[in-house]
Amino acid sequence: MSLIKELMNALQILPGVGPKTAQRLTFHLLQKDKSGGQHLAEVLQTAIKNIRECESCRTLTERDVCKICANPSRTPAQLCVVETPADIIHLEQATDFKGRYFVLHGKLSPIDGVGPGELKLNRLVDLLVECDELIIATGSTVEGETTAQYLSHLAEQGGIKATRLAHGVPLGGDLEYIDNSTLAHAFASRTQL
Amino acid sequence: MSLIKELMNALQILPGVGPKTAQRLTFHLLQKDKSGGQHLAEVLQTAIKNIRECESCRTLTERDVCKICANPSRTPAQLCVVETPADIIHLEQATDFKGRYFVLHGKLSPIDGVGPGELKLNRLVDLLVECDELIIATGSTVEGETTAQYLSHLAEQGGIKATRLAHGVPLGGDLEYIDNSTLAHAFASRTQL
Ligand SMILES: [Zn+2]
Ligand SMILES: [Zn+2]
Repeated sequence: MSLIKELMNALQILPGVGPKTAQRLTFHLLQKDKSGGQHLAEVLQTAIKNIRECESCRTLTERDVCKICANPSRTPAQLCVVETPADIIHLEQATDFKGRYFVLHGKLSPIDGVGPGELKLNRLVDLLVECDELIIATGSTVEGETTAQYLSHLAEQGGIKATRLAHGVPLGGDLEYIDNSTLAHAFASRTQL
Repeated sequence: MSLIKELMNALQILPGVGPKTAQRLTFHLLQKDKSGGQHLAEVLQTAIKNIRECESCRTLTERDVCKICANPSRTPAQLCVVETPADIIHLEQATDFKGRYFVLHGKLSPIDGVGPGELKLNRLVDLLVECDELIIATGSTVEGETTAQYLSHLAEQGGIKATRLAHGVPLGGDLEYIDNSTLAHAFASRTQL
């Protein structure tokens, strides 16, 4: 296989990139912006090698403990549980939340065999010790709601207040597609479960 | 800047990739498909290092002379002039052309200061020695037609038949967006200029 074809194929691992787009990207990288392409290749390699999960909240980071968890001005008394690291970026942009996060890296889905063990929720339990309020920011999909119910039980058992983002999160939608102001509103008017 | 942000920025050199898409691609590469991402980084680096222009036709290749130019069963008597390497891929898929190509890497645009010198068209003249038919496959944009007229003159001076892809190429459009069967039809019914 020629190197050009290899590059076209390699680009198709990207979500939303089919053969036609891959071809356009290939010629862009090899002709229009070689230095940008070289930089992309280097950064991608370094990132893949160095980025791992934060030992505390499990978001992606190049440190042992991420910037948010390592920041002493962020209180462990408020813990916000999200499905993905992208949700943290989104909440940080949209709100002035000063607590900590915990990333589920998924959601409970008994039908797919994803239970508390698969999500390693025991690591959440350690964080609940210092926690007064568990803010459950999973999406409002079926699995998001199932997960929220489970987390709410967990909080109840620990005598911790559990809150959930206010409606405003579109029904059946993931956090990813919500605009900042809707998300800020939903976060501000979160309700106790 | 964190490595994650650096990767998000680096991805935005890709055409059509804004901040939102870059974020999605970043988490895909760092979580869902690390090995695909590692492979992409390596192939991209190797391709940028090794791919250059064919010494004869100027398409992109990892050899001194590309596969088509090096193929003795492809006749130099028919020479097809295209704007980009992508056009060669497209024509090879759509037609059973057995001649050779020449890549302009652009088109004449006097208004933008792109003349025969900028496109190094002297390198085309060498190829005309062995050529009976110059197939002009530039797009039917204003610049594409200007270029075609110039090439047609060049062929005339050399006593070479010049042909142009038949109508079927949408007016005002580049080759890139034409489906295979329209392109095959246009190629088969090319007309003498
Ligand atoms: Zn952390
Ligand atoms: Zn060649």
